[in-house]
Amino acid sequence: MGQTRITVELPAWVEPFVAQWPERFDSAEARMRLAVELASRNVEHRTGGPFGAAIFEIDTWRIVGLGVNLVEPSNCSILHAEMVAIAMAQQTVGSYDLAAGGGVRHELATSTEPCAMCLGAIPWSGVRRVLCGARGEDACEIGFDEGAKPPDWVGELNRRGIEVARDVLRDEARAVLKRYAQTGGTIYNAGAGA
Amino acid sequence: MGQTRITVELPAWVEPFVAQWPERFDSAEARMRLAVELASRNVEHRTGGPFGAAIFEIDTWRIVGLGVNLVEPSNCSILHAEMVAIAMAQQTVGSYDLAAGGGVRHELATSTEPCAMCLGAIPWSGVRRVLCGARGEDACEIGFDEGAKPPDWVGELNRRGIEVARDVLRDEARAVLKRYAQTGGTIYNAGAGA
Repeated sequence: MGQTRITVELPAWVEPFVAQWPERFDSAEARMRLAVELASRNVEHRTGGPFGAAIFEIDTWRIVGLGVNLVEPSNCSILHAEMVAIAMAQQTVGSYDLAAGGGVRHELATSTEPCAMCLGAIPWSGVRRVLCGARGEDACEIGFDEGAKPPDWVGELNRRGIEVARDVLRDEARAVLKRYAQTGGTIYNAGAGA
Repeated sequence: MGQTRITVELPAWVEPFVAQWPERFDSAEARMRLAVELASRNVEHRTGGPFGAAIFEIDTWRIVGLGVNLVEPSNCSILHAEMVAIAMAQQTVGSYDLAAGGGVRHELATSTEPCAMCLGAIPWSGVRRVLCGARGEDACEIGFDEGAKPPDWVGELNRRGIEVARDVLRDEARAVLKRYAQTGGTIYNAGAGA
């Protein structure tokens, strides 16, 4: 029947790295900088693809969950940075719905706009805001595939009450993608060779 | 920084349950029956939502990975049955790409058509065929949300070389959804209350 268990864990470098940052991330730029720096360190440490994400409690601006891309080291195609951050944040709050109760709102900051899978996951997560760094086309530029996203994906999220801000530190986020490609990082489009 | 680890594990009833089935699942109906029965048992055992999935190696027709919906018990909105089956199958083969190498092909059987997230995950998984039981509208009928799927999602998968067969044991699969709703199962549309 195959394997019956998988443990998903952030790389060991994440905790000491995050300990150097202030506890509050008041500005959108500060929150995106954390996501982009997670992506950058993930490339440096060779612990996965060039993507990072973080979920914050809106108003207190504290971290609730972090994510980096773990596809290659975990042998698992679903472990994009956004998915890992969603899973970790939900473990922190103890609910599959970050909007449960309705009192506390959460924001997802992602170093690159979500692919079709992560876009589909966002409404199920309960986050109420999404900050994006690099554009989907920046990821495509180095060979990644975005999947079949609705042309008006921002509007689709908006209609569900989820705000979206794009191009926050886009240049910095895009630079991480380029460095990954230049240093020979795997462009892991599963199924592409089949 | 929030939680840094999550372990995803199939419920304990799955292994003895699957041990009662033959090793080979030669027909599409047999493969779908397993997915639908996983959904049904998941409801009975109250270990998650009314959805089951299984990934088979094409030609040998052996199970490579199984999934049931674990959203509620795991407090994790991404743990739809298809996502769990993909993660488990990839652990079994030791690759994030079930099409790696190109020799062995895999099929995903899912008791209900994929939502937007799972649909986005399918191309990244490396499966080459998808068998669907109940339709997305059957899930919507009991109150679940499918998300923003491309209108021609079957064509989108086909264009990536992924075959799709629909309505395999649809009535049986739909009956599991109805029973879940009638017995008061949670319709866990995260964020819906916000």
